[in-house]
Amino acid sequence: MNIGKARAYTNIALIKYWGKKDDRLILPMNNSLSLTLDAFYTETSVQFTPELPTDRFYLDGQLQDDAQTKKISSFLDIVRHKYDVPLFAEVTSKNFVPTAAGLASSASGLAALAGACNAALDLSLTPEELSRLARRGSGSACRSIFGGFAEWQKGDSDDTSYAVQVSSDSWEDELAMLFVLVDDAQKDVSSRDGMKRTVETSVFYQGWLTAAAEDLITAKQAIKEKNFVSLGETAEANALRMHATTLGAMPPFTYWSPDSLKAMNLVRACRAEGISCYFTMDAGPNVKVLVQKKNQARLLAQFTEQFSENQLVMASAGPGIEILNSERSLTHD
Amino acid sequence: MNIGKARAYTNIALIKYWGKKDDRLILPMNNSLSLTLDAFYTETSVQFTPELPTDRFYLDGQLQDDAQTKKISSFLDIVRHKYDVPLFAEVTSKNFVPTAAGLASSASGLAALAGACNAALDLSLTPEELSRLARRGSGSACRSIFGGFAEWQKGDSDDTSYAVQVSSDSWEDELAMLFVLVDDAQKDVSSRDGMKRTVETSVFYQGWLTAAAEDLITAKQAIKEKNFVSLGETAEANALRMHATTLGAMPPFTYWSPDSLKAMNLVRACRAEGISCYFTMDAGPNVKVLVQKKNQARLLAQFTEQFSENQLVMASAGPGIEILNSERSLTHD
Repeated sequence: MNIGKARAYTNIALIKYWGKKDDRLILPMNNSLSLTLDAFYTETSVQFTPELPTDRFYLDGQLQDDAQTKKISSFLDIVRHKYDVPLFAEVTSKNFVPTAAGLASSASGLAALAGACNAALDLSLTPEELSRLARRGSGSACRSIFGGFAEWQKGDSDDTSYAVQVSSDSWEDELAMLFVLVDDAQKDVSSRDGMKRTVETSVFYQGWLTAAAEDLITAKQAIKEKNFVSLGETAEANALRMHATTLGAMPPFTYWSPDSLKAMNLVRACRAEGISCYFTMDAGPNVKVLVQKKNQARLLAQFTEQFSENQLVMASAGPGIEILNSERSLTHD
Repeated sequence: MNIGKARAYTNIALIKYWGKKDDRLILPMNNSLSLTLDAFYTETSVQFTPELPTDRFYLDGQLQDDAQTKKISSFLDIVRHKYDVPLFAEVTSKNFVPTAAGLASSASGLAALAGACNAALDLSLTPEELSRLARRGSGSACRSIFGGFAEWQKGDSDDTSYAVQVSSDSWEDELAMLFVLVDDAQKDVSSRDGMKRTVETSVFYQGWLTAAAEDLITAKQAIKEKNFVSLGETAEANALRMHATTLGAMPPFTYWSPDSLKAMNLVRACRAEGISCYFTMDAGPNVKVLVQKKNQARLLAQFTEQFSENQLVMASAGPGIEILNSERSLTHD
């Protein structure tokens, strides 16, 4: 059998995915919209072979144990079942992250794995089919099939839930995102557990769904018009609403740490000084700041005064998934 | 005319007042429940006299200007109109606060002013009538008429909106509250403006109202049963829900500063170490921690490690409003 190898980049949602309506198929409660970034990516190779008695998973050079391999094997089970492949596989992954701060992303990881399977088994999946497959591994991975802006259309079944490219006339090339890596003293609530508890118990969840639907329309219009202020304000408000829902869960919880608030305050202070920038946050304490490339140096200078250099990573918009051992491109861009 | 003089203590809501349905009469959207504390109080004397051409207001020894006197005069206008008193007044107030951190409270201030007017004009108001009067000055002042636990019953008119004593078999004497005074670098949104913006624009406001009604029932049952864990968990969850509503407002805002989160995290850490304690927060960055007296020394020791001593004030349950120049008591306790 062939080896398939792919590289996928992480993406950061500007309109958040927050809550599943189907845990097994990973169907989301609301549409989400993301920007793929170039600074964090995963390269993964897959080889299905009759010589293996079980799946083997190497991550960053280390053979992983059964527990660490479980998520990979579960995804491979879906592939084996769907495409009738009665073989175990060896999976070799490498996460490319600019610091050791643990920003490895399941979005880039599972997208790369899906892409590598597609290549190894010569499935010739369309971008839509590949997005659907990646979604089964990790919801947000379905957006990492595409570069630039992507929208995950929630759908209502395995067939109808996948991401699509959001056309932007290459506007994303004028944008950048500053990752502010914040130390977290608190015990984490995983993204998966957090959204589950929120959907099931938060008094604010319905309000979130109503607002997220409106935010998506506003954000897509902003991209169409290349209106940075509108996109930024909408993304920041959407992120705050997502985080508000966790405060209404039972028991309540938060992903924020003191330094998260420090970073958010600094973003507001930068705006007050005329640097147009907006933050977003995911299920963890890190803060990501959307800025136009023309302002990224000024933004970075402000953050360097309050955070150490190894906490700060500037990223540009990234490409869609790339097949590394063939000439074919899987995406439009 | 006689001089009337009264002392009133501040109160901290465990189930928050958050939103008005009538701005002029100060009728709230939901019932609230508070604990009166002994560490912060206001003493105020009032003298109505034909010799003054306008109201005069001395605060902590300083004659206040027109802008600073406006809130006092507005309240005196209500008193003059209601009780047919065609005289201006001299008002002398002193705020007793253990530090200079600006925890002066409009609750204690307006309750003391109402009590002083009651005495000066010999109105012989019942506690219910006095609570209604104080409410017109500042909503939360209506609860400071009572010591221990008080419930502000929202009502639907000037006559039906007032606080009542929540009987507790003196359980409040076993409780304490640690005030953690947090520096705020951010520009404040006043309590009044914050609740107005939230009622008018927050996608989470309906969720808040639904939850607050349930929280009130749970908290009153907890007081009845002297169930500290239930009261604390309910108060903490209620405060987080109140603060979540501000994140759903347009534009969104927050009263939290990095040190607020540090204090909240420390409360959680204390609980993990077996010190039963719960936080609440109002429209500002300070954190208040409810604890049983038997644990207050251990709690204070933990906080002293992360905060300076002049940021920490321990309070016990306080009494209701006191008339200082007569033998009459206005409240049941």
